[in-house]
Amino acid sequence: MSTWSSRFANGFQESGEGPAISRAVLGGKGLGLCEMARAGLPVPPGFTLTTASSLAYFEAGRRCPDDVDAEMVESLRWLEETLGRRLGDPARPLLLSVRSGAPVSMPGMMDTVLNLGLNAETTAGLAAETGDARYAFDCYRRFVQMFAEVVLGADADAFEHAIAARKRARGVAADTDLDADDLRALAAEFEALAEAAAKAPFPTDPLQQLRLARDAVFRSWYNQRARDYRRIHRIDEHMGTAVTVQAMVFGNRGWRSGSGVGFTRDPSTGEKVLYGEVLLNAQGEDVVAGTRTPLPLAELRRTLPEVHDQIAIIASRLEAHYRDIQDFEFTVEDGQLYMLQTRSGKRSGRAAVRIALELLDEGVCDEKAAIRLVQPAHIEHLLHKVFAPGQERVRLGRGLPASPGAATGRLAFTAEAAVEMAEAGVPVILARVETSPEDIAGMHASAGILTARGGMTSHAAVVARQMGTCCVAGCDAADIDTAAGTLRLGGQTLKAGDWLSLDGSAGEVILGRLQLVDPDLHDPNFARFMTICDRHRRLRVRANADTPEDARRAAAFGAEGIGLCRTEHMFFAADRLPVVQRMIMSEAEEARAAALAELLPFQRADFIGLFEAMAGNPVTIRLLDPPLHEFLPRLAELVEEVAALERALASREATVRLFEMSGSEPAELAAIHHAMRAGEGMLAQRRALLERARSLTEMNPMLGHRGCRLGITAPGITQMQARAIFEAACAVHKRGLPVRPEIMIPLVSGVEELADQRAILEAVAEAVFQEQGVRVEHWIGTMIELPRACVLADEIARSADFFSFGTNDLTQTTFGFSRDDSGVFLRAYRDKGLMRDDPFAHLDQKGVGRLVAFAVRTGREAKPGLKIGVCGEHGGDPSSIAFFDRSGLDYVSCSPFRVPVARLAAALSALELAAEASA
Amino acid sequence: MSTWSSRFANGFQESGEGPAISRAVLGGKGLGLCEMARAGLPVPPGFTLTTASSLAYFEAGRRCPDDVDAEMVESLRWLEETLGRRLGDPARPLLLSVRSGAPVSMPGMMDTVLNLGLNAETTAGLAAETGDARYAFDCYRRFVQMFAEVVLGADADAFEHAIAARKRARGVAADTDLDADDLRALAAEFEALAEAAAKAPFPTDPLQQLRLARDAVFRSWYNQRARDYRRIHRIDEHMGTAVTVQAMVFGNRGWRSGSGVGFTRDPSTGEKVLYGEVLLNAQGEDVVAGTRTPLPLAELRRTLPEVHDQIAIIASRLEAHYRDIQDFEFTVEDGQLYMLQTRSGKRSGRAAVRIALELLDEGVCDEKAAIRLVQPAHIEHLLHKVFAPGQERVRLGRGLPASPGAATGRLAFTAEAAVEMAEAGVPVILARVETSPEDIAGMHASAGILTARGGMTSHAAVVARQMGTCCVAGCDAADIDTAAGTLRLGGQTLKAGDWLSLDGSAGEVILGRLQLVDPDLHDPNFARFMTICDRHRRLRVRANADTPEDARRAAAFGAEGIGLCRTEHMFFAADRLPVVQRMIMSEAEEARAAALAELLPFQRADFIGLFEAMAGNPVTIRLLDPPLHEFLPRLAELVEEVAALERALASREATVRLFEMSGSEPAELAAIHHAMRAGEGMLAQRRALLERARSLTEMNPMLGHRGCRLGITAPGITQMQARAIFEAACAVHKRGLPVRPEIMIPLVSGVEELADQRAILEAVAEAVFQEQGVRVEHWIGTMIELPRACVLADEIARSADFFSFGTNDLTQTTFGFSRDDSGVFLRAYRDKGLMRDDPFAHLDQKGVGRLVAFAVRTGREAKPGLKIGVCGEHGGDPSSIAFFDRSGLDYVSCSPFRVPVARLAAALSALELAAEASA
Repeated sequence: MSTWSSRFANGFQESGEGPAISRAVLGGKGLGLCEMARAGLPVPPGFTLTTASSLAYFEAGRRCPDDVDAEMVESLRWLEETLGRRLGDPARPLLLSVRSGAPVSMPGMMDTVLNLGLNAETTAGLAAETGDARYAFDCYRRFVQMFAEVVLGADADAFEHAIAARKRARGVAADTDLDADDLRALAAEFEALAEAAAKAPFPTDPLQQLRLARDAVFRSWYNQRARDYRRIHRIDEHMGTAVTVQAMVFGNRGWRSGSGVGFTRDPSTGEKVLYGEVLLNAQGEDVVAGTRTPLPLAELRRTLPEVHDQIAIIASRLEAHYRDIQDFEFTVEDGQLYMLQTRSGKRSGRAAVRIALELLDEGVCDEKAAIRLVQPAHIEHLLHKVFAPGQERVRLGRGLPASPGAATGRLAFTAEAAVEMAEAGVPVILARVETSPEDIAGMHASAGILTARGGMTSHAAVVARQMGTCCVAGCDAADIDTAAGTLRLGGQTLKAGDWLSLDGSAGEVILGRLQLVDPDLHDPNFARFMTICDRHRRLRVRANADTPEDARRAAAFGAEGIGLCRTEHMFFAADRLPVVQRMIMSEAEEARAAALAELLPFQRADFIGLFEAMAGNPVTIRLLDPPLHEFLPRLAELVEEVAALERALASREATVRLFEMSGSEPAELAAIHHAMRAGEGMLAQRRALLERARSLTEMNPMLGHRGCRLGITAPGITQMQARAIFEAACAVHKRGLPVRPEIMIPLVSGVEELADQRAILEAVAEAVFQEQGVRVEHWIGTMIELPRACVLADEIARSADFFSFGTNDLTQTTFGFSRDDSGVFLRAYRDKGLMRDDPFAHLDQKGVGRLVAFAVRTGREAKPGLKIGVCGEHGGDPSSIAFFDRSGLDYVSCSPFRVPVARLAAALSALELAAEASA
Repeated sequence: MSTWSSRFANGFQESGEGPAISRAVLGGKGLGLCEMARAGLPVPPGFTLTTASSLAYFEAGRRCPDDVDAEMVESLRWLEETLGRRLGDPARPLLLSVRSGAPVSMPGMMDTVLNLGLNAETTAGLAAETGDARYAFDCYRRFVQMFAEVVLGADADAFEHAIAARKRARGVAADTDLDADDLRALAAEFEALAEAAAKAPFPTDPLQQLRLARDAVFRSWYNQRARDYRRIHRIDEHMGTAVTVQAMVFGNRGWRSGSGVGFTRDPSTGEKVLYGEVLLNAQGEDVVAGTRTPLPLAELRRTLPEVHDQIAIIASRLEAHYRDIQDFEFTVEDGQLYMLQTRSGKRSGRAAVRIALELLDEGVCDEKAAIRLVQPAHIEHLLHKVFAPGQERVRLGRGLPASPGAATGRLAFTAEAAVEMAEAGVPVILARVETSPEDIAGMHASAGILTARGGMTSHAAVVARQMGTCCVAGCDAADIDTAAGTLRLGGQTLKAGDWLSLDGSAGEVILGRLQLVDPDLHDPNFARFMTICDRHRRLRVRANADTPEDARRAAAFGAEGIGLCRTEHMFFAADRLPVVQRMIMSEAEEARAAALAELLPFQRADFIGLFEAMAGNPVTIRLLDPPLHEFLPRLAELVEEVAALERALASREATVRLFEMSGSEPAELAAIHHAMRAGEGMLAQRRALLERARSLTEMNPMLGHRGCRLGITAPGITQMQARAIFEAACAVHKRGLPVRPEIMIPLVSGVEELADQRAILEAVAEAVFQEQGVRVEHWIGTMIELPRACVLADEIARSADFFSFGTNDLTQTTFGFSRDDSGVFLRAYRDKGLMRDDPFAHLDQKGVGRLVAFAVRTGREAKPGLKIGVCGEHGGDPSSIAFFDRSGLDYVSCSPFRVPVARLAAALSALELAAEASA
């Protein structure tokens, strides 16, 4: 009875009393082999050491426990019996492959040793048995190289150099041109290299070879590239890897042998054709190494037609079994086909959608299964430009993948330059140290945005995602000198106008101009697939949209309302900012009221546009949120401006004195006096602005005078915004169109603030309805974005028509992390394994999520049926969406370009919850 | 059966079926009268409308409900029968006093109407009945004036002017010199004034007068000064006021009549003597008005000896009944004594302690009751200097009462100037816009500190409380121009060296020099009282202390350990700061390590001092907490410094060029070149500092790179601090002294950070113990100061030996309020009634407290018996202490000067919990 291993052979698969036949226990590779064996497909026999055995290895302090080892030897004996061959037997040597296989696919990240079991005697035996000395020595030198690299830590280059030297010496081009003697000599050279690396003799006992290889494969779970891969792909660090020990089959036994990989469909288009490549007279790693060019799989039809037919039949059986496109590896040994691996095939976004729909139409799977065949990342990929395949990329540096897609353009260093270049028809990449609301026009004009500072929720990242513009943020290594107009990165110095490309999905900055491929948003497959998703989700999906244009785009992407309209974005438009500044500068109540009155028509017009675009779907409008100093020029700029004006004035005064001393009064004097008066006026105005900006300066603006605190200290702002909203709603209503305004009060810490602002809103609503002679149904709710609001959600719920979680701010305050400042130490946290995910990208379910769940539960206890959504950045993140669905939220709201992603994520979550419920 | 009123008369007190005889129902005044009546003391009969009746009045929209009014009339009829007099009866007129009386004493805040019931007819009747026309008209003009002011809203000045004019015309000095005709004429003038104010005839119907007066007294619950008083004293806004309607007795019926107030003991010293004042031939308000000088109560022994004796007997009965010093009002009408009010007497801190102990020694009360007789504010008062009584104060402005006590000194505007003046023996008031750690020496040298910005937990406030130095913080109106050396406030402009006084307990800034009285800390009563408190509390009290000096002071005040040693305060000392800066500036790991090694001996010496001062009591040391930029000069200063160095260099270069042009090479040239080289070196150094300071600049430092995040990104700092702590502990242990180090890791958001830092600490501990050959028991715990730490307290508890709540930061993050920036809007919140208490002064029990309670519960579930304390500013606040006691914390930690306050507060809390448990 086996505990640590699971055996398989052609048509046989040990089951019943051994380890569970599951991906978690056997890894992807082990499971695939077991299942193929069970289905009677031709697999070389072998056994899989379970993931638990690798965990036991690490637990024992990187030592293989005796019982694991004993069971491996027992399974080996079984394998020897099954095949009638023995490990180390010169007469009939058994050769093994030892391969890793994690429960989650981590292609190429961990290690493999092939041809294990060879030494001088068994190599001689193999030569004798096969009558092919060249083949035997080819196997041996491959084994020594691989074993040396993987187990003994030798450097790969030395082996490649030795082969190259030998080929040069023999005057041949291809490895296959080397003869048996060459390979024998090479094998000896390789052994010497291995012994140099190990500082010990090369192990000749095949069982010892197996034990060492097994442990090396265990250890490769924790090698650097595997850890990095897991971090990037958010894979659990504690699953461990399985190890499959399998009899070797040989693709290098001549021209009726070969190794290849295949896909059951075309992984880039999704078309239903057998797709793949094969390399004759070669082992598997030759295909990967790329030293010889493989043939298309279809070529086999000519050279080994029966093998081709067998592959086609097996491919269709695999697809029928797995109900998904399969990516398989095979080896042909002297005309005999062996399947070495099968797994779900990686595919492009376009292919994923097409395959899902075709499998559905073929009756292979139902709608639920079809949805599961597409990942949120596929949809994301589908919605953005990508680089045309096959182009070489010169990567200058890496930043955060802040907004997906690809972009290529000429460099601009200021928003103004970006706008100018864009107007001249030039595609622009805007490079800024960081962006601010004043850069909006330039960001809008650009094809891509690069920043040196800021995280996944920095201004640049948020705005770029909102616009659907590709963005690489927080590229620390980039030295952007705006004044000099240079970008230094990766050893290059680029100037304004130079070509640069960005991969916003990977966070890469690439030198020069690359060709792009447009997304096909009108692909009927896409629309049909999204409709299927919609049928299976409970969670509603809204969009964050600040302008009618955003809103129309959101509607086109299937948004079922606006979950967040940030009214302050309306304040930054060029025609409004001066009025906003006048409002901020007003000391007197009337002056402030006058400025607010000037803003009213702008806001009203915006809201009318939003209501119309949403056609009766809810439009959630957040009252003014950011601190007022964000609307003033930056302090440093004002200081410089004032100093420059002072210098100009002083210089003019000096000129006047000079004239006075000389007694002359030329005509220019009047002009100078005029300029001085104008300069004095300007100076006084800028000084006042500077003083106000100084008085608004805060130590911690994130925790300062913003959100509802603005509306409480300056109720006139709330009144103006309320009037704009209700007048807009009445205007649309009077045209006979449906309208559903939801007003959201930001940053409340308790019910008192909500009640204060609500009273103002209700009073204005009543006044407007009286004036307009109509009433419009409306809802007044609140952002839940402070821990105290979560804790007191029950009280707050009684005064709120809805909740909307602002998980960005809630994450900042719950962790005490400023998203602007946390980059430095969060990097250290991730490097040290103290934190798996960026909590601003993926909701921290354990901490922040607990507060969210508490607020949902207590809020609904106080007000049954309370509508609850989320409008932070997490609203577009699939793992966070699953959490929100599970927590019972009614909707998520995200940037328009993520709406389809969210629709799929919501459907996937619903399917998972249903599966759990029925389990 | 009465619902809304409770009747009393001499020896009679309605009970059983009427309203409950309680302070909440009858108010303090009503309850005192009821109880005195019940005890047979001479009180004029009357009845009290309950607090519920005022609430009913407000609920009905400021209208007296019919049933309340009907019951009042019924009680009035009972009163008329009792006395054989009728309201409005010219033959035997009944006159009434109508007085407010809240459940909590709010002296002088609400309104009163006396002599009610008079009009032309009843005044004539009163004159006829008493045969004293002067007396009758005196009553009448008093009534008209009071009614006009309280009920009709007339201005008091006009009445005073009329009296003054009349006295001038008659050539007399005192009111008592005016005769009946004068008073009749005055009454007529007063009626005219009243009618002008009311724009209506003066009401002559006595019942209507009563109804109007009653409603005015109800309304006075919400007058501005009452609201302000409640806000300042944190009194519930929704209790309402009772109204007592009582037969008038007359202190103005001649020289065998009078009104007075008395105390059963001396309220400033606590001495057991009858203490008070009396004014003959006068009503009560004349005593308060201060127009005539009253006589000491003892004088009565001469003039009305039987009344004096009666008062003495009653005083001793009142004290025996209430078991506390009583403050009572009385009136003598023609030799007949009437008690009008009794209440617990306000007393000085010194008196409070003495009275409590003497009542205990007299057997009047037990220890528990004695403790309850002293309030935390009394102890606070006792520990600080106060202004000598009787000095006139010219108040220039108000700020926050940031650190209690009084101070007087000469103005200094910089820390350096303060140190210089103090060294010359001059007492200093340091005035700063806000303080920073660099000001510490100046703050230490000063008698008092004034800041224009910052709240109750600003740097100035925290440090001042720690030092026991008087501080008024956040005095917005103060215009402090440090460069010019001026302070503009309250219309005055003061210069450096001018005298100024501060009342840190009241938050007042006072012009000029005032005399101070020192606290008597060696008062044996104080020590004895504190010992009694200690016997009755459960909660332990520790002190926040950063230096051995602080620690010794804390021990003297009874601290049972150090709950918070902020190690960064050790970094600011003049001999250490340059080393700290070198550490921050080091790019290379070795340079940083070298700087840290230099800091080690300083820290070790400090810790040895702390351990010795605490003599085996726990010493909780917090690892470095603030962001590193706090140790660098301020950015603006560095910018200026660099600019100045650049200018100097440029000017020297110009001089050199001039010499070169002129071809001369004088001797100075060498000196100039030398200076230039020095200047260049300096410039390079400052530029590097500036660059580092810039790179450390954060948007929101509160949420930035600080706390354990420092020790995680720079483990060398944690290692150095750990080594200093453990080496110090070993050194003290080797001397045979007990030592109990507790190491506290700040700002953890989850267990991972704690585990990371804990591993470093344990490794260093092991290394040091090996080196030293001894082991010292030690504890490693964590601050709980982020919402996420509260939410995940169970996980964190498993890796922590103790928790210490950092409620300052927890308040900031839970509310999303920066304590540095929230002043502006929190003022608006309080003005609008959105927030009763400053959450930085008094723990927000509802929100923050819920997180605290959750963390305590789940932390202890995970680790039973987990030791938990608090070390934020709230640890010294009585209401917060009560909450912490109730939540099951083991200790609070506060600044040394608040330790005795906390000991009392903890005892009071324990008594209250015990009382609740037995109820």
